[in-house]
Amino acid sequence: MPRKIVIIGANAAGVDAASAARKTDRTAEITLINKEKHIGYSRCGLPFVIGGHIPDFFNLKVFPPSFYEMMKLNLKIETTATSINEEKKTVDTTDKTGKTEAIPYDSLILATGAYSFVPPIKGKEKQGVHSLRTIQDGQQIHEAIKNGARNAAVIGAGLIGLEAAIALKERGVNTTVIELLPQVLPVMIDKDMAKIVHEMLEQKGLRIIVGKGVDEIVGAEKAAAVSVAGEKIPADIVVVATGVRANTELAAKAGIALGETRAIKTNARMETSVKDIYAVGDCAETVNMINKKPACPQLGTVAVRQAKVAGINAAGGYALFPGVLGSAVTQLFDTQIGVTGLTEFFAKRAGIDTVAGTITSKTKADYYPTAKPIRVKLVVERESHRIVGGQVVAEEEVTQRINALSFAIQKHMTIQELAKADTAYAPPLNETWEPMVLAAELALRKLR
Amino acid sequence: MPRKIVIIGANAAGVDAASAARKTDRTAEITLINKEKHIGYSRCGLPFVIGGHIPDFFNLKVFPPSFYEMMKLNLKIETTATSINEEKKTVDTTDKTGKTEAIPYDSLILATGAYSFVPPIKGKEKQGVHSLRTIQDGQQIHEAIKNGARNAAVIGAGLIGLEAAIALKERGVNTTVIELLPQVLPVMIDKDMAKIVHEMLEQKGLRIIVGKGVDEIVGAEKAAAVSVAGEKIPADIVVVATGVRANTELAAKAGIALGETRAIKTNARMETSVKDIYAVGDCAETVNMINKKPACPQLGTVAVRQAKVAGINAAGGYALFPGVLGSAVTQLFDTQIGVTGLTEFFAKRAGIDTVAGTITSKTKADYYPTAKPIRVKLVVERESHRIVGGQVVAEEEVTQRINALSFAIQKHMTIQELAKADTAYAPPLNETWEPMVLAAELALRKLR
Repeated sequence: MPRKIVIIGANAAGVDAASAARKTDRTAEITLINKEKHIGYSRCGLPFVIGGHIPDFFNLKVFPPSFYEMMKLNLKIETTATSINEEKKTVDTTDKTGKTEAIPYDSLILATGAYSFVPPIKGKEKQGVHSLRTIQDGQQIHEAIKNGARNAAVIGAGLIGLEAAIALKERGVNTTVIELLPQVLPVMIDKDMAKIVHEMLEQKGLRIIVGKGVDEIVGAEKAAAVSVAGEKIPADIVVVATGVRANTELAAKAGIALGETRAIKTNARMETSVKDIYAVGDCAETVNMINKKPACPQLGTVAVRQAKVAGINAAGGYALFPGVLGSAVTQLFDTQIGVTGLTEFFAKRAGIDTVAGTITSKTKADYYPTAKPIRVKLVVERESHRIVGGQVVAEEEVTQRINALSFAIQKHMTIQELAKADTAYAPPLNETWEPMVLAAELALRKLR
Repeated sequence: MPRKIVIIGANAAGVDAASAARKTDRTAEITLINKEKHIGYSRCGLPFVIGGHIPDFFNLKVFPPSFYEMMKLNLKIETTATSINEEKKTVDTTDKTGKTEAIPYDSLILATGAYSFVPPIKGKEKQGVHSLRTIQDGQQIHEAIKNGARNAAVIGAGLIGLEAAIALKERGVNTTVIELLPQVLPVMIDKDMAKIVHEMLEQKGLRIIVGKGVDEIVGAEKAAAVSVAGEKIPADIVVVATGVRANTELAAKAGIALGETRAIKTNARMETSVKDIYAVGDCAETVNMINKKPACPQLGTVAVRQAKVAGINAAGGYALFPGVLGSAVTQLFDTQIGVTGLTEFFAKRAGIDTVAGTITSKTKADYYPTAKPIRVKLVVERESHRIVGGQVVAEEEVTQRINALSFAIQKHMTIQELAKADTAYAPPLNETWEPMVLAAELALRKLR
């Protein structure tokens, strides 16, 4: 009898899990259950379609229909998994016509994702108030712009909030971002680095309000403004981007343990507390590689890496997930912002005694006319001299510096080692002294 | 009595050594001796001035005159060090007026660099035959172009040869590159990767001849053509770029030991075989970090890193140089080519049993309109699974991938670890699955 693998959720995590399972077991029956109509698309691309950089939302579909056929995956689209029966090893489902089915599994992978969390702001149910998580969300914002929206308010200055705000601005909409915490990108980078981003965003014409909340979304049936500390800021479009929460309802109902982060607890094989049930992606809790504490970074890269591990294990193979550093990067207008490991703020909160080294240098030889400024910050554990975090802001060459620092952190590189690392240089491509090395030198001085 | 530090050579290595020495000993008397008139400039920038990307050769001066004053460095320009007296601890010098002086030292740093090696090609003494090592060389080529040179031949398809050929082409000169070895960039990258570069160069309008030598430089007093396998290729300008050799005459005369690479032997403190004499940069031999064998990569980055170590030690401090991986990168037209560690070819020659993983992917999300192809090759030691080399070719985001792989190699990362590394992604900046990770996965399959 072929092995039955059922996967709930068919986006980055679900489809990659299916793909890994298929590569591990050529004969397994693999079924993907997805609530939404659209499957296998890149959520991360949504702001860039709205902004006009990508022609159409359907370009975001990572896998063509032929992929699912080739991989012999059974698709159950617009179908909701309503409960899990761990004894019988079945998943109860209801499709869009109301038809119910109990689908049997040998291995079950939960890739149920996350949902946009909307805080209890007065007026949040009004027309014109959006999230940005699905193609449908994206299409609605796109339509609103096409229908003549002039002003927008984005609540939350995290990654999605700022990417959405820029997309709106690029489409000619006056946009204000309101963040309750005292800085932009509060979960991603430290305040000193955020300051550069904040100034850049204002220069590019966004209004940025930090340290204040939205008291109310004002308007009759439709949003017309947001009220912030007594000021009414006009807004035909309101985008709520105050973070996402793991979809754990189905798991919790089945008695699967949740972790400290309120996501589904997993071990290194991505197994949940219930035998033969795995969890991956935005709904799954994992560990931080540095301090071994529970973490749920909800990043696409983490989702696909976990999915691969769970897919292999669910299909009878053996694979381990090493944990996360939370490496992430974004492009805001012409500026790239990246992070890996712990920020100074979060290291402190995790009880790690650190020093930081921060420098401004150039992305090319100083004399090269197109050289751009670059800012690098390194966070170092004081006792071990080990690098525990890095942040980079520049107009170019940020992403792979984050990857370089990620490799360094993963391999327990000390700041002394980084200060002497062998780096590549050519006048049109880098400075002779690599900026990460210069930042290491600065951090090192603070340790002496 | 203040410590007397004498440095022979005042370019990348010499000036950085002086700077590190000054930071270590505020009161030392530091003297820089330089044969050439121009000091402290970036040789690596010369092709980019010829190509018109940098306005003037004098933009290449990395340090303004005020730097030398601020650092309290005694400059002896257009002055030749003729011999070293190890007993008396003096350096004999002759300035441009013929005046001789014996300069006493407590510590001596040899940063004598390298010279362009010109093989014994018939006609190599003719007018119009150039090297490209100094500002003077660069100015002569620049003048020749301004004076109407129409055709050029570049002998040697290494880094400098190709950079020079492109500069000539960018200035409207028909250019042919002739390489004796069977591929372009023969010392830098493997043949499979070089093929991509070769095709790109031809597409951009350079003529590339590999596997053939120049038999003769033809012409009356002035070069008019080069003769290659019976064909006469017109050339008013001939650039000989067949590599450089360490300047070791002064050291050898003083009985300082040379190494296997014919450069000056050094230990981890950059000390030569003679007490209180250090050697750094293109004239110094070091060790390869991977196989611990003697190496002399003659790169600017290596020079400045060694210089820092020697400067600290010469001034009474303590610093160690960890060896080299030979990380290097270049920009040829719009293509960036990078390498770190050992190529498959050189690993084999060093007796290392390897497997390679090579993939083509994209620099951004596949659906992102401006995504470019990228090719990554990883070289892995079969027994240990340790990464020993990496090569990357793409139109963007190459340099920092090389740095990332350099960090990985330095920290003994295995291919399994790289295949699970935590990487950063955003649609306009990278693929969800980092190309280096995909290449690792491919290499891994060959190990199973």
